[in-house]
Parts: sequence; C-alpha cells; structure tokens
Amino acid sequence: MLIRFHRNTDEDSVNKLKKSVEQTGGSAFYLSHAGDMLMVVNGCNPEFFSNISSIESVLNIDTPYQLANRALHPEGSVVNVGNATFQEGKFTVIAGPCSVESFAQFKSIGESVKPQGAKMLRGGAYKPRTSPYSFQGLGEDGLKIMSDVAKSLDLPLVSELIDPRDADVLYKYADMIQIGTRNALNFPLLRLVGEMGKPVLLKRGQSSTVKELLTASEYILSCGNFDLILCERGIRTFEDSTRNTLDISAVPVLKKFTHLPIIIDPSHAAGRAEYVTPLALAAVAAGADGIITEVHCKPQEALSDKEQALSFEQFETLMNGVRAVAKAVGKEM
Amino acid sequence: MLIRFHRNTDEDSVNKLKKSVEQTGGSAFYLSHAGDMLMVVNGCNPEFFSNISSIESVLNIDTPYQLANRALHPEGSVVNVGNATFQEGKFTVIAGPCSVESFAQFKSIGESVKPQGAKMLRGGAYKPRTSPYSFQGLGEDGLKIMSDVAKSLDLPLVSELIDPRDADVLYKYADMIQIGTRNALNFPLLRLVGEMGKPVLLKRGQSSTVKELLTASEYILSCGNFDLILCERGIRTFEDSTRNTLDISAVPVLKKFTHLPIIIDPSHAAGRAEYVTPLALAAVAAGADGIITEVHCKPQEALSDKEQALSFEQFETLMNGVRAVAKAVGKEM
Amino acid sequence: MLIRFHRNTDEDSVNKLKKSVEQTGGSAFYLSHAGDMLMVVNGCNPEFFSNISSIESVLNIDTPYQLANRALHPEGSVVNVGNATFQEGKFTVIAGPCSVESFAQFKSIGESVKPQGAKMLRGGAYKPRTSPYSFQGLGEDGLKIMSDVAKSLDLPLVSELIDPRDADVLYKYADMIQIGTRNALNFPLLRLVGEMGKPVLLKRGQSSTVKELLTASEYILSCGNFDLILCERGIRTFEDSTRNTLDISAVPVLKKFTHLPIIIDPSHAAGRAEYVTPLALAAVAAGADGIITEVHCKPQEALSDKEQALSFEQFETLMNGVRAVAKAVGKEM
Amino acid sequence: MLIRFHRNTDEDSVNKLKKSVEQTGGSAFYLSHAGDMLMVVNGCNPEFFSNISSIESVLNIDTPYQLANRALHPEGSVVNVGNATFQEGKFTVIAGPCSVESFAQFKSIGESVKPQGAKMLRGGAYKPRTSPYSFQGLGEDGLKIMSDVAKSLDLPLVSELIDPRDADVLYKYADMIQIGTRNALNFPLLRLVGEMGKPVLLKRGQSSTVKELLTASEYILSCGNFDLILCERGIRTFEDSTRNTLDISAVPVLKKFTHLPIIIDPSHAAGRAEYVTPLALAAVAAGADGIITEVHCKPQEALSDKEQALSFEQFETLMNGVRAVAKAVGKEM
Repeated sequence: MLIRFHRNTDEDSVNKLKKSVEQTGGSAFYLSHAGDMLMVVNGCNPEFFSNISSIESVLNIDTPYQLANRALHPEGSVVNVGNATFQEGKFTVIAGPCSVESFAQFKSIGESVKPQGAKMLRGGAYKPRTSPYSFQGLGEDGLKIMSDVAKSLDLPLVSELIDPRDADVLYKYADMIQIGTRNALNFPLLRLVGEMGKPVLLKRGQSSTVKELLTASEYILSCGNFDLILCERGIRTFEDSTRNTLDISAVPVLKKFTHLPIIIDPSHAAGRAEYVTPLALAAVAAGADGIITEVHCKPQEALSDKEQALSFEQFETLMNGVRAVAKAVGKEM
Repeated sequence: MLIRFHRNTDEDSVNKLKKSVEQTGGSAFYLSHAGDMLMVVNGCNPEFFSNISSIESVLNIDTPYQLANRALHPEGSVVNVGNATFQEGKFTVIAGPCSVESFAQFKSIGESVKPQGAKMLRGGAYKPRTSPYSFQGLGEDGLKIMSDVAKSLDLPLVSELIDPRDADVLYKYADMIQIGTRNALNFPLLRLVGEMGKPVLLKRGQSSTVKELLTASEYILSCGNFDLILCERGIRTFEDSTRNTLDISAVPVLKKFTHLPIIIDPSHAAGRAEYVTPLALAAVAAGADGIITEVHCKPQEALSDKEQALSFEQFETLMNGVRAVAKAVGKEM
Repeated sequence: MLIRFHRNTDEDSVNKLKKSVEQTGGSAFYLSHAGDMLMVVNGCNPEFFSNISSIESVLNIDTPYQLANRALHPEGSVVNVGNATFQEGKFTVIAGPCSVESFAQFKSIGESVKPQGAKMLRGGAYKPRTSPYSFQGLGEDGLKIMSDVAKSLDLPLVSELIDPRDADVLYKYADMIQIGTRNALNFPLLRLVGEMGKPVLLKRGQSSTVKELLTASEYILSCGNFDLILCERGIRTFEDSTRNTLDISAVPVLKKFTHLPIIIDPSHAAGRAEYVTPLALAAVAAGADGIITEVHCKPQEALSDKEQALSFEQFETLMNGVRAVAKAVGKEM
Repeated sequence: MLIRFHRNTDEDSVNKLKKSVEQTGGSAFYLSHAGDMLMVVNGCNPEFFSNISSIESVLNIDTPYQLANRALHPEGSVVNVGNATFQEGKFTVIAGPCSVESFAQFKSIGESVKPQGAKMLRGGAYKPRTSPYSFQGLGEDGLKIMSDVAKSLDLPLVSELIDPRDADVLYKYADMIQIGTRNALNFPLLRLVGEMGKPVLLKRGQSSTVKELLTASEYILSCGNFDLILCERGIRTFEDSTRNTLDISAVPVLKKFTHLPIIIDPSHAAGRAEYVTPLALAAVAAGADGIITEVHCKPQEALSDKEQALSFEQFETLMNGVRAVAKAVGKEM
C-alpha cells in the first residue's frame, strides 16, 4: 500500500502515523522525493488510513513493488541524463564499445555514432568477465578516457559499476551508472546506487522474472533515486542460436506495471552482430523507449564481445531502420 | 550434403549413383520437386561427386537439415495458399477464433477481419485441450462451417490436424493444414502432412530449438511438400507474466538458415489480448512474413483461450499499426 | 470434484444425476473401473450432492486432474505387467536397448540383464528420430524379435507407440505401451492407449510441468485404464552438460499428488552412460518405484543413443548400487 | 594449459618463463599454493614448454577453468573447516536456520542438530531479500550470537557475505564464508573471498551452467584459496511445483570435471520442507559430499524461508535416512 501525503505535511505527523502503523504490527517506510511525500505500508488495513487529513491518497497496490508500480505515475516517468531524455513517446539510442580500449578507439566510435543519432555513449571500464584470465578493463584510466571523449562530444556517458569500492571513481566520471545482469540481485549494490544520486540503468538479471526486476528496482527507488531506467537484455533459456533470448514481451508487460522508462539491449540478447538490427527494430515497434547497443571501430579486433559489436556501417543501417519504425509508431528521436 | 542434378537427368543414372553411395557406407535420399532433382547424402565425401556429368551442383551443407537450408533457395521460398501469399517482402495476416463455435460466430468474425486486411482465416475444429474434460472442438461440423464461410468470403482457411485419423476430413475442408506446438515432434504426423499435398503451417514446439524446428520441417520437405510455412509462437521459459516467451530473435535466425517463410503467433506467445498488438508490431519490424492471431466476436464468452482473443476493435488497432510498420520496413500488405 | 457411488448402484440413477448436473450448467463424466463407480464433476457446488443415498463419498479435489489425484487411492496404486509389479515399497528395473537391431542383439541383452535383476525388457521398434534420414527402427519385424526373446525369458516387454496406425501391431507384441516424451501432449494418442486395454508407461514431456503430466495422465485414466505408470526422464533447461535435466524433485512431488507409480529414466536424462548409475541411485533414494534404462551389448556400435547405453559391466555396477540403496530405504527388489 | 614446476624452483626462472610466454602473445598467471608452483597459460603451444628442466608436468587442460579442473588433483580435494571435513568418501551435514533471529533461537537449533550428527552450523546475518521491505538480518549482532553458540558447541559456522564492506566483520565471526546464488557471478566478491584466507562455500547461480560455476570458482582459486566447496542448490526452470529444480546430475558431472568437494542444498531447491528429505537422500546416493539444510525450532514462525525449514523431528528423519543411504554407498559420516 502506498500513502501519498499532502505536500508540505509536517514530518512530525508523518512520523506519528509511522509509529502507530508499527504499533499495530505493520511496517511503514517513509520517503520524500521531488516534493512527493510517500509512505510504503505493509501488513496494515487500508481503512486504517481513512479520515486522516494529512493524507492525499491511498494507493492499494497489491504488487511486492510499490514505488515502481505504474499507479504512482500513470503518465510514465521522464529520466533526463545530460541532454538525453528517456520517456514514452521518444526513442533514445545509447551506443559505444563493450570495453573502452584506448582514447583513439573510444573517440573514433563516439565521433561515428553521434552524427548517426546516438544520444549517449556507453563503455565498460570494469568488466565482469566470465574468466579471471580474460581482459578485465582499463579501470579509472578507461573512465577518464571515456569521460573526456563524452564531454568533447557533449554526450552523457553510462558505465557499469560492479564493486562498491569503485563507486567514488565511477561517480566522478560517469553520468549514469549501469548495474549489469550479473548484479541484478546484488542488493547492497542496488542500495548503493540508490544513494549515489546519479541516474541508474538497471539491467534485468538473466534469470530474473519481470516481477523480480521490478522488486529489485524498488531497492533503488526506496533510497529516493527515481532517475531509473530498466533494461531488458535477454534471458537464459534452452535456445542456443542466440546468446540469450530477448524477451520482447517484457516491453508491454513492463509498460503495464511500471512508470519507469524501458530500454532494450539487442547486442547482449543476440550475441551476434547480424541479428542486432532486427531486434532493435522490434524494440521500437514493441514500444520500448530506447536501446543500448555495442558498436566498435574494428569489431573483429575488439577485446571483448567482438561477435556482437556492430561496425559503423551496420550501426548506420540500424539507425536508418530505427528512425523509420519510430516514425511509424509515433515516437520522436 | 545436397546434390542437385541437371533437370531431365534420367532416373536410372540417379538410382545408380544412389546405390554406389550406399555401397560406400553412406546414405542417399532422392527427391524430385517442381522439376528439381535433389539427393540428400550423408556419410559420404564431396569428392565422390566431382566429375559426374549429371550433377549440376553439390551443396556442402553441414546442418542436419538439408532441404530446409537457405542454400537451396537463397532468394527465399514463396508459398501460395489460395489468394494468400507468404514470401519475403510481404506481410500476410491470418485471423480467426481459437475454436469455431457456430456458423454465426465464425461468419461474424470472418466478415469483420476481411475488410481489415486479413488474407486467411484460422479456426480449430479438433482442439488439443490440456484437460479431457474441456471443450474438444466441433469436429467435422466445425470444419464444414468454416469452409462455407471461408469460401463465401473468398479467403483460404487453415485448421489444425492432431490425429492422422482425421486427415481425410481435414483435407476436404482446409486449404492449409496446421501442425500445432504439441505435435511439433510428432514425426508420423509430419510425414503424413508431407504426403497430403496441401500447404502446411508448422508451429515450433514450445521447447524446440530453432535447429529442431528446422530438422522437423525436413520430415515434411523430404516427402516432396515444399509449401511449408514455419511459425514461432513462444517458447517455455521461467517467465510467467506471459503464457510463453516469444522468441523474436528466431525471425532473423530462421531467415539466415532457411528459405521457408516465417510467421509469428503473437496470441499464444502473449496469452493476454493486451500484449498481442505490441508483439505483432515487433514481428513486422523483425522481418517476419506474417502473423496468425486470434480474434473473437465476444472474447469474454469464447469457449477456449478467451484471455488472448482480440476484440474487433483491438484487431483494427493491430492492423493499423501493422500497416504502418510494414510500410516503414518496406513490406507490402 | 470426484463422486464415488456405492458399488452396485444402478446406472439409471447415475445417469439421472449426470443429467441434473448438466442442467445446472455443470459437466459430469461417468466412469466405472474395477467395481468403482466414479463421476468427475466440474462447475457444480459440493452441496448439490449431499443427501443423495447412492453416493458413498464426495472428494472435493481442486486440481485439474481428478482420477490421478492421490485422494482417490491414498495408499498408492499397484500396476502389474506380467510378473513385474510397480508399487510403493518395491523397486523395479526395466532394461534393454534403445532400438532393437537384430535377434542376436536383443537376445544377448535380455540374457544379460535378467540375471542381474531386470524385471522387464524395453526396446524400440518405431523410433521418433530427430532427423528423417536417421535409422527409424525395424517396425513389426523388430517387435516380433523382442516379443520372442521376452517370452523365452519370461519377462514382459515395453515398447513405444508413436502412430495410432501402429496400435494393433503394438498391441499384439508388447505387454506395456510406452508414450514417449515427444507425444506426451498428443491427446488422441493418449486416448487411444487409454482404450487399448494394456498397461501404459507415460513419459513426461520435456517441457511439461508436473501438473501437465498429471493432467495428460487423466486422458488415459478417463478411458478407464488405470494400469498407468508415470516416468520422469529429464526436462529441458539451459544446462547443457547433460542431455536433459533430471527433475529428481518430481518424485516426491508426484508421490504427494498422485497414486500412480513413478519411475525414472536416467539414460535419457543423462545422455551419457557415465552419469546413469548415480542418477539411478538417486532415483531409489528419492522414493521412485523403478527405473527404465538403456543397455547394449556393444554400446559404441548402437544404431541410436549410443552415448547413453550402459555396457553389461556398467549395468552390473548399477544393479549392485541400486540393490544396496533400495535395502537402505526399505524397498524390495 | 596448466604448468606445474618442480617444487623449490626459484621464482626468477618462473618469472623469466612468464615473460617469454607473454612475448609470444600468450598470457601466463603464476600461483604458489601449499608448495605447489603452478602457472595457468593461455594462447601458447604446449611444445613451447618441452625440455624446460624446471617444469615437472604440463597439463593440457582444454576447459576455461584450469585450477578447478580435476586433472590437477585427480584424487579429489579435502577441505577442513574446524573439525568438519569435506571430501570424497565422507558425507558432512551443515544445518541451521535461514536467518539468526535471537540467541535463544540459534542455541535451541544448534543444540538440537548437533546430537543428530550435524558437523557445522549455518545461519544468515546479512540476508539478500527479494524485497527491500522484508527483514534484512541482524547484521553483526547476529554474527556474534552465532559465533558464541557455535563455539560453545564446538562446531564451525558458515555465514553468507553479500557486501565487500562487511568482509571484516564476517571474517571475525564465521569459519567459512558463503557466496550465495545471487552473487555467484559477482566477480569482485569472489576475488575478495579468494583473498580473505578462510574456507569458502560457493553456491551455483540459479541460472549458471556447471561450466560457469567452475569458471567462477577459478576466481577464488586463482587468489590462492583452495579451501573451496561447491554447492548445487537448484536452477531456474519452467517447473513451478518446487522453488527451483535441483540439478542432481550436477553431482556426477562436477565429480568428473573438478577435484573440489560438492554439496547439495535441498532446502532452497525444494522450497518446501516436505520435499527436503527425499532430495537429501538423493544427494547422498548420487555421490555428493554433504548437504546444507535449513532447520528451525518453530518453522511456522521463522522470519524468512519458513516454508522450507525442517522441524527438529523432520531433521531427525532426514538424518536417519541419510545415515542409512551413506552406509549403503560406502560413505562415512
């Protein structure tokens, strides 16, 4: 259950209500965000809250996630990261390499994708690699490179956090913090990015249900961070002709249940460059608010994920297709 | 390995070659189709076939399926069913109820979907229901109703075969025979429809890989029936917010590996009417050649699958969206 | 809901009740089996049946399967096939090759497994092979061979039915009819073996839930055939180090929900001979009533499934282990 | 490829070899453990290492994991944690509540499971709960309680680490550090426990393949920590009658590929107390080296995972069964 107080309610009366909920055996979690004064209540009867003058509305939400529920913002949330905007009615493309490898590499990619219409750059500095003997990323040096290039191109940068101990460094250089699929249920890390005060891109765990993705997002929202974008990137199934199985249905399902913007990662879903464009087009058509995709200046020489990186030519084809479909379904780019 | 003989090669020399393959311990399967003279060979060296004058080409196909491999028809196959055509560059919509329930019901649906742009009618007379105590379909009476309506509307009809003992009845009334997901690996039934001489719609098994779908299709093709359309209809995964998980990536994957037309069944994938249109639009954008979808005059009263049936209004919305996206990706309707 | 009438109730009053159920909008399915007079009722209130003198008891079963529900026979069912018995408290081993290949092969295997303790022989004559170009089985000739060997060894024989058109032939030679995983939801075939009047071994579909397996079994039971054994043989998952993933938990789950005997097929689950014995031992320990396993005189030369066939020596090791664990958990062999 | 040097080789010559490998474009990772001098080499030809006098043997391991490969210790590893030993030929039981809730609760459980034969206590102080509004564990207070009880009973304690920032606290109180399923691919956390110098219990990710579990274990081993036990605890599949699907086949598969001890968590696999004992017995029979199971003094009042916690009586039944099966398969307890 989600209680919305009248704005400017004094916090004393909120705290009093919290206590009285707890005395009846229920739990209450209070949160103030952008002027909204909200309280998540569990184990308490709705009638308990009738005739309390400080309460504007009681949303009787029956999902385990409350702040993520669409009922809170039926019109859909808007997340701004620098000049990039994620919201319904728009389609926003994030592009860049799996890993930053050098200044020249990242600059070349950035300069190629921006004129094609990419609104944000991506690139990994701390890589969660399956084997400890694989390339693990350039760390802070890589972040510095990416940040310099991004600034020079006036594009925001998203990069992944995999270790709480790197949070300060990442905060310094990245405009949006990504939580990757392997950390989708790493709750301390979710809380940490909830508290960092930067926009967050939360990828779905490869074996998380949509419901679990939304409940995980609640860890971030309950820290007062509503600048949150969800990303479907393929789930693990028995099918092995693609790296993962893109759950395209997650787009309309998420749109029904949450107000948060939804983007698609066609690169990790497909695992092969040749399948990325059809999946990107499907993402637009199904109603996603954007994509994040891997592009490399020389895909065959990439230090990680080379099979799925698009060449510049392939990215151009993708963008032409995306623009046409976006127009057909009434989305601005 | 697939051998293509020069047209008009005399069958004697083909048979001689077959024998000599078998004498070396290999296997050879000969097939004549639409003037093409083809031989599927296993366990034999390609060099064996060099310098044989009757041979036009040797396709060294390394997939377990041979006749389904794109190498046989790189330009893609065309399947005509009455006036409906399935091929790359087009997008063809099949619509109708899960089950035929009465003449009035089927007529009402047919008359509604045709002007919206449906090119073929669907409807089940023999239903594979999970429980033996559920409605099992109207049988031949239902087929007769559907056939009468379809003829009066000048639309072809597809209906499902679940029992070899119903093949003759189905042959009489349906223009295309559907093999459903539960029979996707029912090999005797696949052979039977291979031999029936009518176009076939083969649905993917809910736990079949793309490779298994293609190998299953080989049972039909090897009977000389090339009027075959494949259908992705969702696979079984851990996600439970939809009935199945639509494997949208199967579209580009299948397009790479086979020449057969590919359609999508968004209704069975979604399991809920509200998600069907986004999935249908994704199907067009990803490159599918059509969809098959469930429409009902009164969805809430449908005797089967009522949660996923579109109302007439929902189908109209779907068709408007499909047309717009088809145009954007250069597909005719 | 399951109604049990007093034995010797006259069928007129049963039919009258059936009609009155149907008049209230419910459905009623009547079945007489081994003296039991049972009626499966849906869509009707339990109170409807109070104070009816011909009714012995009303089982308010809330599962979609009724006759398979443990409530009907809380003590567990006993299925006899020749001298082999499947029931709780016993552990019964079925062994033999994937496919019968010749009289010498089948005789050699039968003569080896019987003294080791196998109580039934298995062997396929009609093989559901993934590729149409693979060995498809010896058909009736193979059945005749197996039947002759089985009779000479005084062991019953189980063999698979994949096509209704082979039912008469199979009836003639086999003592138990197997429905394989690919036909687990082939409802016309399930009805057919329900009506054939021979014991049935129903394998779980590789993507069927336990609940779907039980609902499928209802197709057979509702034909009055209660000589039914269920078989867990591995389900399809993302794990690829085994052919399928043995769902060992299905044993206690099925034991809770149904009275039918449960056996395990460790061969198809494992897909590799070296893993079969540990899985067979796990089956005993988890409470299964038997196993069905593949044994071959020369595994490396088997015409099908050669990777998973046990050699005679491996089968001896398996049986020694099985006997020891069966004794430890109080099961007779 | 794994190089084993003669013991007491001087590190200079090791370093020289490392450099020359890197100059040829390969990678080399050196590790000294318990007197063993090992080098993991990738991208280099085995012949490169012939005729080098400091090298004792070259293991041409073709798996992505090297130190975890059975080839390194074909006889199997032994891991001691206090008085508890995990090795082939033994079966060791870990028991305790999901979460420590109070001194009285943990003491009561410890005093009950020890005389039944449990050799180690388990209990969570930092809980990775799906919802941020659920009980999150007692933290350091809980660890202190568990450590006090464990010491008084002379049993070692295992507890889960979910946040690097809690590592020092956990180090102080726990005898073995658990990495749970949600962090199975949290590589920085794996490295951290690799460096902590305490035994580690690594649970399989719910969507990790066996191969990925082994590659993840390499992160810990490559830090020089070989006191590592792997735990199969169920994987995510479509089946929903259990919380997860216990992959019992993982036991023989892991036994083939790695020298590390393997235990089973039947509680999280089953998700329901009534299924735990059959799964525990299956674990023994399949060759596992132990189990970790949840026991509670009052299961119905547990603050987390109450459906799957065993009562004291249920645990006694489990232990009786486990002892009998262990004896049957020749395992000491």
